[in-house]
Amino acid sequence: MKYDAEVKISLKNGMLNPEAATIQRALALLDYNVENTATVDMIKFTIEGSDQELVKKEVDEMCQRLLCNPVIHDYTIKISPKEE
Amino acid sequence: MKYDAEVKISLKNGMLNPEAATIQRALALLDYNVENTATVDMIKFTIEGSDQELVKKEVDEMCQRLLCNPVIHDYTIKISPKEE
Repeated sequence: MKYDAEVKISLKNGMLNPEAATIQRALALLDYNVENTATVDMIKFTIEGSDQELVKKEVDEMCQRLLCNPVIHDYTIKISPKEE
Repeated sequence: MKYDAEVKISLKNGMLNPEAATIQRALALLDYNVENTATVDMIKFTIEGSDQELVKKEVDEMCQRLLCNPVIHDYTIKISPKEE
């Protein structure tokens, strides 16, 4: 069975985010005043597996080994049966 | 009143995504076989406004002027009253 996986990767609280700071400053220059700007990276893919829990465990392993840096990143994983 | 805005920016269908291709190849090297890998950038911020519809219009303007490149990007905007 195929599942859709969605991994959201954000910087841990307290980490400086120069990308978000730049966006906020650029918006301010255009007279849009916003606060608490943050950026999140999302990675989506389709994965084959027999069971939703097992797939989630596998994706968690991928995050630890490749997709995220656990020292600076928080991540959340969403697994759902693939939409046809 | 304050609103939470969430802008999701993805490449239009058919655009090559070297970042996603690299992730998928790197996962394959670690023996994780996934398909249809895609990346989405998310920008979140808090914005002050009088009315949800007006705020959405303003954020749409931000997307057109700064956050997205309408030639290559699709984007979706979600506005919700700020959680305390």
